[in-house]
Amino acid sequence: MLHFDSDYMEGAHPAVMERLVKTNLESTPGYTEDSYCSQARDLIRKACTCPEAEVYFLVGGTQTNAIAVSAVLKPYEGVVAADTGHINQHEAGAIEATGHKVLGLPHTDGRLQADVLDRYMSGFLADESAGHMVCPGMVYISHPTEYGTLYSLSELRALSDVCRRYGLPLYMDGARLGYGLAAPDSDVNLEDIASLCDMFYIGGTKAGALFGEALVITAPVALRQMITHIKRQGALLAKGRLLGVQFGALFSDGLYLEISRHAIRMAGLLTDALKSKGYVFFTPPQTNQVFPVLDSGALVRLRQNATFSIWQRLDQSHVVARFVTSWATREEDVRELIALL
Amino acid sequence: MLHFDSDYMEGAHPAVMERLVKTNLESTPGYTEDSYCSQARDLIRKACTCPEAEVYFLVGGTQTNAIAVSAVLKPYEGVVAADTGHINQHEAGAIEATGHKVLGLPHTDGRLQADVLDRYMSGFLADESAGHMVCPGMVYISHPTEYGTLYSLSELRALSDVCRRYGLPLYMDGARLGYGLAAPDSDVNLEDIASLCDMFYIGGTKAGALFGEALVITAPVALRQMITHIKRQGALLAKGRLLGVQFGALFSDGLYLEISRHAIRMAGLLTDALKSKGYVFFTPPQTNQVFPVLDSGALVRLRQNATFSIWQRLDQSHVVARFVTSWATREEDVRELIALL
Amino acid sequence: MLHFDSDYMEGAHPAVMERLVKTNLESTPGYTEDSYCSQARDLIRKACTCPEAEVYFLVGGTQTNAIAVSAVLKPYEGVVAADTGHINQHEAGAIEATGHKVLGLPHTDGRLQADVLDRYMSGFLADESAGHMVCPGMVYISHPTEYGTLYSLSELRALSDVCRRYGLPLYMDGARLGYGLAAPDSDVNLEDIASLCDMFYIGGTKAGALFGEALVITAPVALRQMITHIKRQGALLAKGRLLGVQFGALFSDGLYLEISRHAIRMAGLLTDALKSKGYVFFTPPQTNQVFPVLDSGALVRLRQNATFSIWQRLDQSHVVARFVTSWATREEDVRELIALL
Amino acid sequence: MLHFDSDYMEGAHPAVMERLVKTNLESTPGYTEDSYCSQARDLIRKACTCPEAEVYFLVGGTQTNAIAVSAVLKPYEGVVAADTGHINQHEAGAIEATGHKVLGLPHTDGRLQADVLDRYMSGFLADESAGHMVCPGMVYISHPTEYGTLYSLSELRALSDVCRRYGLPLYMDGARLGYGLAAPDSDVNLEDIASLCDMFYIGGTKAGALFGEALVITAPVALRQMITHIKRQGALLAKGRLLGVQFGALFSDGLYLEISRHAIRMAGLLTDALKSKGYVFFTPPQTNQVFPVLDSGALVRLRQNATFSIWQRLDQSHVVARFVTSWATREEDVRELIALL
Repeated sequence: MLHFDSDYMEGAHPAVMERLVKTNLESTPGYTEDSYCSQARDLIRKACTCPEAEVYFLVGGTQTNAIAVSAVLKPYEGVVAADTGHINQHEAGAIEATGHKVLGLPHTDGRLQADVLDRYMSGFLADESAGHMVCPGMVYISHPTEYGTLYSLSELRALSDVCRRYGLPLYMDGARLGYGLAAPDSDVNLEDIASLCDMFYIGGTKAGALFGEALVITAPVALRQMITHIKRQGALLAKGRLLGVQFGALFSDGLYLEISRHAIRMAGLLTDALKSKGYVFFTPPQTNQVFPVLDSGALVRLRQNATFSIWQRLDQSHVVARFVTSWATREEDVRELIALL
Repeated sequence: MLHFDSDYMEGAHPAVMERLVKTNLESTPGYTEDSYCSQARDLIRKACTCPEAEVYFLVGGTQTNAIAVSAVLKPYEGVVAADTGHINQHEAGAIEATGHKVLGLPHTDGRLQADVLDRYMSGFLADESAGHMVCPGMVYISHPTEYGTLYSLSELRALSDVCRRYGLPLYMDGARLGYGLAAPDSDVNLEDIASLCDMFYIGGTKAGALFGEALVITAPVALRQMITHIKRQGALLAKGRLLGVQFGALFSDGLYLEISRHAIRMAGLLTDALKSKGYVFFTPPQTNQVFPVLDSGALVRLRQNATFSIWQRLDQSHVVARFVTSWATREEDVRELIALL
Repeated sequence: MLHFDSDYMEGAHPAVMERLVKTNLESTPGYTEDSYCSQARDLIRKACTCPEAEVYFLVGGTQTNAIAVSAVLKPYEGVVAADTGHINQHEAGAIEATGHKVLGLPHTDGRLQADVLDRYMSGFLADESAGHMVCPGMVYISHPTEYGTLYSLSELRALSDVCRRYGLPLYMDGARLGYGLAAPDSDVNLEDIASLCDMFYIGGTKAGALFGEALVITAPVALRQMITHIKRQGALLAKGRLLGVQFGALFSDGLYLEISRHAIRMAGLLTDALKSKGYVFFTPPQTNQVFPVLDSGALVRLRQNATFSIWQRLDQSHVVARFVTSWATREEDVRELIALL
Repeated sequence: MLHFDSDYMEGAHPAVMERLVKTNLESTPGYTEDSYCSQARDLIRKACTCPEAEVYFLVGGTQTNAIAVSAVLKPYEGVVAADTGHINQHEAGAIEATGHKVLGLPHTDGRLQADVLDRYMSGFLADESAGHMVCPGMVYISHPTEYGTLYSLSELRALSDVCRRYGLPLYMDGARLGYGLAAPDSDVNLEDIASLCDMFYIGGTKAGALFGEALVITAPVALRQMITHIKRQGALLAKGRLLGVQFGALFSDGLYLEISRHAIRMAGLLTDALKSKGYVFFTPPQTNQVFPVLDSGALVRLRQNATFSIWQRLDQSHVVARFVTSWATREEDVRELIALL
């Protein structure tokens, strides 16, 4: 059976695993106060060209989003997001569990556009009953989006401008950030993100780590005692050095980008094949998630030999499927899948 | 100046006020444990033809909604509502403050339709990632809606059927219930509501009381220790008998319906005049809230002599205005307003 | 039957009720945005000699405490209080419902002492694991306390000094503040409170109003958009002017103090009689709550003709009873009770 | 430098690490839905002699406690615990973050005694104002306790009896459960725990795993959709199989007990040496945490060569120190430490 369900089906990239094994019996302080975490923080600050950034290491994405959002918002504020945002759809209400509303806006292939945000904000401010409404307190975007699409640099700049005009911290969910950075048609790099966003996270779980996300805060928008805040959310890893060791590996020798590029290349092979066979795409394939439309015949045929998810039912006889590649995807598996198309 | 801003600009109906004055110096136990509350509960049960109903007295609508919703939902559940629902728009995130998401669905003039709910639920249950999504745990509707519109009995029945099919308690926000019951083209009465909903509240604040809402629970869908739950929400009125006295007055001698009918008649006068002068309506006028479209000229002219709210801007030169009547609206004021149209 | 259960058994003081009746049919804007509220705010600012203070009107005490505390604390902070504090004992977890811990400290007849707080804070700051503990973020006291006792001015100053040294906003629950201000052996006045506390509330419910508390904020320690915060808690009264009218009455012509003095005089009569008959007191009687120890015989005898609460069981044959007087207590009732002792 | 700070300073036991490495490149479904988790659940059910138990795998202890407690309590309920309970002291308010109060009771060397609970419950039920208080909804204990002490089987039985009498689910925090099971003077085994508690967790983080806790539910006291509940708390591990693999290793070939016994033996060496040198203990040493009282001289001397925590300051010249051993403690390190005493 071929597996294209997700980019978290395997363990860690061998280079990451090797470091975990090598350091396994060392004794270090807990709770990310060790030297591996310090080194990894420095590597990340350097990669972002942002020497002042705060970096916190967390275990998973939903957790990171809930911590980031609740570290910024006042009780009566909510977080603005595309309707399709992960926090609005697939995190089981983790944001609401911290007492905050997700204010969903229309999207363009999963992206929140600057003009949509601008219109929403000017409408809110002009509304006579704004004082009785959840006050927009920050903006959430994901890059790549849940649909595998990417913000261009100019889109990101425009969005950042609108956010700054309205005093809204901008937060980027980078669960798959590596795959975004490695995409050939992306003109956004880590330094851009660090300067245009106030907060973002660099996803490890889906890009080479066993688990782990690095929350980077580049502007003074969040709570000061983040460690206590993280502990309160049940998210402070006892053996915090595991996160430092892994991110240390990922941010040494360009590993993070290198393994992301592999996934992008694998997705590219699949995309090209799909195109050449006449499949249409639900959203333009840009990263490691590909969303072709399958008719019932193709669906049945492919599911006999491959696992992948059904994203959405379009009509009686068509679905949107999602195929995901990762650092661990083997080229022979992609070729086998292509042969089945 | 004429006032058509809302239905809570005056104090209490004189008959209600009289009872408050008459009982003012009596000594009673606190926290709605007094005999006035008992009597008022009985009157409400009788009016609903539901002798087993539990009745709790609360101070305001947002408070009542938050208490009702959080009394039903499990931590991982959310409340389904029309996008336009008061809990989704104008309660400053009070539901989210209790940890729950409002799951907004498309509306028809403020109403949630049975087929929309049905499609949503079947889609949710078929979704492969439903376990990662907020689980729909109850349905909220308002009657009359925020747009002044009404469910017909057949609509309400259809909605109730879908709810029961999916095991979803149905809760009705009756902030303006009196005006709904008194509307000439409504075929829904209190008994229907008590049998088709599992929980609803009868609004006092906007219909004759100084303040107060009566939460009626007709099926075993809520927490058992409601008084402690209410206390925890900061909503247990010390001098609870004030609520009993007021609802006792409202539900004696048909007062609640009688004063509601007056408001409906006043709204009818205004509606007829608007129609005859060619104004168009944003939503069909059915109760005590009327939403005509005004051009800039009319807006400026009317605002010189009357207060009312601007509901929405349609374009550069048109707005949706909201005119509200109540038990306290004077016919001469309506006639004066009509003269200005 | 004689009633000494609580100070919220009757409605409003006649002078307050009269104003409610007189203004009943006026039309005003909602949500405490009316001129009665403005005037009442000014009267309160003047009474506190604090022209810059913010004043918010709320319905009840538990609600006010939850709103005040959650307006000050960051997510990872807790509120320090005497173990016996109302927020720690009798508010059904309303503070915890906002996500915050009450950090209970030992008390002296219901009072939190400066040295106890100082030791707690220095211990906390020296604790190696402070970062994993709830961070003390403000201090709550009640005056009079739940035991009817009072802070002296020097005690309050000492406590305020410690709070300021550690950067902890000081908040006073003044549910029965009038009775504290009117107590003959109190040397604390409203101006002292406004200068030594950062936030406090002046209780109306138990001192002459139908309902209502005035939250006074004298230092920039709370959220800025308090109205939205209050709405989110379900606590923004639609007909907010009811609060303004009542506090306007209470703070005109010295009414608040005058009616509080009556309650204190009534409690004094009872206290003197209890003393002369050899009853001992659980806590020194200072305000309108008196806590004598009753043996079983006295308990049975008194309960035949009077209602009052049993505060605590001391042993098989003794209880601590609580007798409460108020602005509404009639001297003949007190004399009748005395005759039964 | 010798390290006795905690039992989470190293990575995983080599046998656990080996399995992680071996399975690293396998593709499995996420979110603990894989076959490794299934197998581990079966091993745990067997070890508990409780074939019907539900088993959920989580990452850390604070997280597990917050999830367990909020899966049981109704909104107005709190969790009873010893004042010294981890949830009451060192989890930064994670329980309160879910809206619930921790109801602290006096302890005996960290243990909650049956008679203390019984008196508290009968007092609560007799309290006239119980309806205004947080309702005790479950009981939390830790075994071993935060002081390294253990419940005897008869103590645990007595406590369980009281819980069942009052309808209170009993939950055991087993962060260091292995060390409790392996302690020579313990007469409590896993089967006892599974039958006397309704819910407990088997700690992996401190006993051989890189991270991970297994929450075992043996009675129908918790929410049904636990996976969604866990997701909402940000605690559903994407690569959930990592937990299954680790617990599979720990519960194969008696590894969990074997490595726990090593830690106990190491603590025993240290305890014997301390005793023979005349040190006194703050609490009786029973498991892998040892709490000797150190005077200033000893403290300074030992800190030159060893790291350990200061639990509490007793007076100007004495502290309570905490020395912790684990599966990873080397006998030579213990002997070196002993030489320094």
